[in-house]
Amino acid sequence: MTVPMSDTTALRDLPAYEAARGEADNPHSAVVRFGADTPLQLDAGGVLTPFQIAYQTYGTLNAARSNAILLCHALSGDQHAANVHPVTGKPGWWETLVGPGKPVDTDRFFVIASNVLGGCLGTTGPSSTNPATGQPYGLDLPVVTIRDMVRAQAMLVDHLGIEKLLAVVGGSMGGMQVLQWAASYPERVFAAMPIATAARHSAQNIAFHEVGRQAVMADPEWRGGRYLNEGTSPRRGLAVARMAAHITYMSDSSLHRKFGRRLQDRDGHTFSFDADFQVESYLRHQGEAFVDRFDANSYLYVTRAMDYFDLAGDYGGVLANAFKGAKTRFCLVSFTSDWLFTTADSRAVVHALNAAGAQVSFAEIESDKGHDSFLLDEPEFFAITRGFIDAAARAVGVK
Amino acid sequence: MTVPMSDTTALRDLPAYEAARGEADNPHSAVVRFGADTPLQLDAGGVLTPFQIAYQTYGTLNAARSNAILLCHALSGDQHAANVHPVTGKPGWWETLVGPGKPVDTDRFFVIASNVLGGCLGTTGPSSTNPATGQPYGLDLPVVTIRDMVRAQAMLVDHLGIEKLLAVVGGSMGGMQVLQWAASYPERVFAAMPIATAARHSAQNIAFHEVGRQAVMADPEWRGGRYLNEGTSPRRGLAVARMAAHITYMSDSSLHRKFGRRLQDRDGHTFSFDADFQVESYLRHQGEAFVDRFDANSYLYVTRAMDYFDLAGDYGGVLANAFKGAKTRFCLVSFTSDWLFTTADSRAVVHALNAAGAQVSFAEIESDKGHDSFLLDEPEFFAITRGFIDAAARAVGVK
Repeated sequence: MTVPMSDTTALRDLPAYEAARGEADNPHSAVVRFGADTPLQLDAGGVLTPFQIAYQTYGTLNAARSNAILLCHALSGDQHAANVHPVTGKPGWWETLVGPGKPVDTDRFFVIASNVLGGCLGTTGPSSTNPATGQPYGLDLPVVTIRDMVRAQAMLVDHLGIEKLLAVVGGSMGGMQVLQWAASYPERVFAAMPIATAARHSAQNIAFHEVGRQAVMADPEWRGGRYLNEGTSPRRGLAVARMAAHITYMSDSSLHRKFGRRLQDRDGHTFSFDADFQVESYLRHQGEAFVDRFDANSYLYVTRAMDYFDLAGDYGGVLANAFKGAKTRFCLVSFTSDWLFTTADSRAVVHALNAAGAQVSFAEIESDKGHDSFLLDEPEFFAITRGFIDAAARAVGVK
Repeated sequence: MTVPMSDTTALRDLPAYEAARGEADNPHSAVVRFGADTPLQLDAGGVLTPFQIAYQTYGTLNAARSNAILLCHALSGDQHAANVHPVTGKPGWWETLVGPGKPVDTDRFFVIASNVLGGCLGTTGPSSTNPATGQPYGLDLPVVTIRDMVRAQAMLVDHLGIEKLLAVVGGSMGGMQVLQWAASYPERVFAAMPIATAARHSAQNIAFHEVGRQAVMADPEWRGGRYLNEGTSPRRGLAVARMAAHITYMSDSSLHRKFGRRLQDRDGHTFSFDADFQVESYLRHQGEAFVDRFDANSYLYVTRAMDYFDLAGDYGGVLANAFKGAKTRFCLVSFTSDWLFTTADSRAVVHALNAAGAQVSFAEIESDKGHDSFLLDEPEFFAITRGFIDAAARAVGVK
């Protein structure tokens, strides 16, 4: 898609953004509300109450309640893993992997996907209404962690009457949640599949996130986080943040294959600051499309949660201690061209799991598509996922 | 240096910025002005006239005029390669390499460093006064290319009465200029040293530049490029651009070694959006320091020049043709951890030079410091530079 430069300076169509806003409190999803009797403990100290979780389910829970699979989404994902997205109208972000007859087979399994704590698609986040004020939380929402997100998910799983999950599966930040699940609730996770992830966020990744946050906070329309109260929108800052992040989701070679130095439909350079190169208009489009469906403050909260993630830190600095005595079986996956979460990051987890005596398999998949590989058509990845989930189902006696 | 978050929201000390502004027309450097009789041909079409070049020289031109070495600076560099910078008060950016007794020995050689066309330290650029209006050019300055920069430098070299340069040396964008010199003026370059560079800018690099430009242009104080006329300053946008770029100048491992996940001088996470991690405050400082010495529109122009650079494009798509029949001797250098301009980029140039029958040596230097290695203390790089320059001097008969 070609996005001329003028599109980035003009005000965009607001209906999509308003639709996204509407999702914050009243999403197009199932919602479970936790009241004062079930507060959420936060790593920052104190509790969050009341709060709600928005989620989607696919398939049917069997009588033994043994066929539930929890999907954990990445930074910019949400609960709409395998259904049409209510705001964008696009397919779910993991329809490649999840659906009837697919590797995560919704004909066999009861699949749960929830919006993370701090998100903006219906789980309590900074754009949700603060019941104490009747106004959006903004930065009054406490900063949340990956462990907080997982604690909330465990309450959702409780609510659904599921004692033990057949599998927890997720990529990138979703993979962090999978690792946290295995560490926090080992007895509740039969099989864990952390994909394209790490047990802690690297300095380089923190740096990229900080650039994104600064881009948002540099936008005068951010208004110290009070833009929803003031009727403004830090769209340009968030778009820049997304553009920078998007580069890190691809590999140099995939960018080269996709765009090279190809120009837009023009005869040559315009000798201007228009988007001469296809890669420029692609990035501008990525930035613009993102702000129609994502909340700027949520971007701050969720990136911060990733930055704070350091699983070993909660276990005396020894990652293996996070998995001590774990009966969970693990399958880790990395992609060769992923420079955001590298094979070395996955290997560090594998080594810790080995040291903890856990059952673990690991696949490094050849791909030139970078970090986003886990969302794309990667047959070897699909085959590995299918095999791992099938084996877990057989072991538990799920048909 | 620790930069608390409040520093990024407050207005900063303006004297440094005003000092930088003063450099645009009346720099603390030698200046040569080219009038209507010597217009500069531009790749965008048309000419630039009048225009000026600001430059520094070190050492003494010998009687034979055979000991001149031209240094070409990178994106954020300038002519102050080996003297205290007039705005920042810091050492020149290449004092590691250039000075009395150093690899580029100013006791033996006459070293020239000029500010590039489109820059902001005294060579005509967007912050220079447009003689037609008496106002700063802003975006009325035509977009310039690497070839335009080199064409201007050749006029400076003419002005200095030098027919043939002993060597042209530069890294990153400076290396692009070196390649362009060798292609445009082969008979004027005895030895060429393109360091950590490429014959064309990759899609990924264009993408990072586009993010930086969008960050600048998203800043409402940019005012369509007319901020100097309107008394505003797109400081925050330029700082974000610099932060994003700075990550690409380092390697993951150098960031890890330098910062890891170390926190600022606090006991733990603040659970806020302050700069908890050292890498965050480092980046914020990099962004802030940059805007005190660099013009936002120059950032647009100079990044654009790099994006447009595709040397083979001017020679029927065959890079070797750029160097056909060249007598220039080449020494290329890359650094193992440089992911912005990789060894593969340098190798592509080496292959083209080989195909053209040129005399070429190539060194890939082991370093974990990323792209910025060429500016840092790299003894092997120094030794190679010294050897290459010495050999050239011997061949030409320079004592």
